[in-house]
Amino acid sequence: MGRTSDARDKILSAAQTLIEQRGYTALGVAEICAAAGVPKGSFYHFFESKQALALTVIDEHWTEQRRQWTGLLGADRPPLQRLRDLFEATETVQRIGQQDNGTVVGCLFGNLALELSNQADDVRRRLQEIFDEQIKLIEKVVAEAHERGDTASTLDTHAAAQSIVAQLEGQVLFAKLLNDPGQVEAMWRNCLALLGVVDPDLT
Amino acid sequence: MGRTSDARDKILSAAQTLIEQRGYTALGVAEICAAAGVPKGSFYHFFESKQALALTVIDEHWTEQRRQWTGLLGADRPPLQRLRDLFEATETVQRIGQQDNGTVVGCLFGNLALELSNQADDVRRRLQEIFDEQIKLIEKVVAEAHERGDTASTLDTHAAAQSIVAQLEGQVLFAKLLNDPGQVEAMWRNCLALLGVVDPDLT
Repeated sequence: MGRTSDARDKILSAAQTLIEQRGYTALGVAEICAAAGVPKGSFYHFFESKQALALTVIDEHWTEQRRQWTGLLGADRPPLQRLRDLFEATETVQRIGQQDNGTVVGCLFGNLALELSNQADDVRRRLQEIFDEQIKLIEKVVAEAHERGDTASTLDTHAAAQSIVAQLEGQVLFAKLLNDPGQVEAMWRNCLALLGVVDPDLT
Repeated sequence: MGRTSDARDKILSAAQTLIEQRGYTALGVAEICAAAGVPKGSFYHFFESKQALALTVIDEHWTEQRRQWTGLLGADRPPLQRLRDLFEATETVQRIGQQDNGTVVGCLFGNLALELSNQADDVRRRLQEIFDEQIKLIEKVVAEAHERGDTASTLDTHAAAQSIVAQLEGQVLFAKLLNDPGQVEAMWRNCLALLGVVDPDLT
């Protein structure tokens, strides 16, 4: 993938912003390079193709988001509270994106899943892996809550974690559609319902 | 919008298929006309622009889907059972789409919400109206279930209906990402949890 350099970072940063604002398909390499302020020739020094760039944008974004997720979900707090922290952080991320871009940009992974799933197998597989990792990170916390007796005793922790991630994608879709990060607030109430939490004071 | 004709229908049908397979941005008018088997000149006889075509595709798809939704949700069945029928029909629609296209195509409205929300205000507004209608159709049935005492007594029926639609979008996203219509099966269990249904036998 070439050595790391200022030009490479500029291309990646410009590409992520443009993909969040306008999607992947609408973009051309020339436009990305213009936004990055680097000559077009240097693009192919770092990336084989536009799709290779997209995969790197995805990987770098997940590296950053995973750091945030593992920090929040591994904190020394009651497990349900950690999930709540994650939802609040998600809303904050969407609010900052809205301030920076003028509109809510949504979830990069969800956006690309719907835009590219049935066109680019490499992208589909990478996004499958990322959502799988997200589900596993959530499931670990759900299982802790379950062991403490905070959730319904019959809970299927994996299915519940999958449903929480699906609900999060759906609420972020509404946040983007309505240009309203506050849509994500519904996550906490829905998470309690999906987990069968009877007494929210347990958190 | 011009008179209805065979050529107009062919353009709409080709455009819906192509948008479901590859999104809106990737398409050109020439390609749509080629797929429809109509001369490019006739396109502008029926549609002012590609975006005007997209809005018509959205409207026609919602007219068809609303007919299905109102039929299922207005049926002479217990209310929760009607919701279950809707989820099963959604899975069937995704399965048929998969058979016709080779991959799960997802929800046309969700796909376009993520692709175009922050680029095309007309499309955003129309999709907001459609999701609002979907939430109202679901809410009516949720309210019936609530009145019968099938759900949690403290249920906020509007918020619950919004969450069911968000969950449906999230599960259909997973169905598309994993090319597996069976992902939608999780809807019934999640719907019961979101509504606080204690005894599923009530349905």
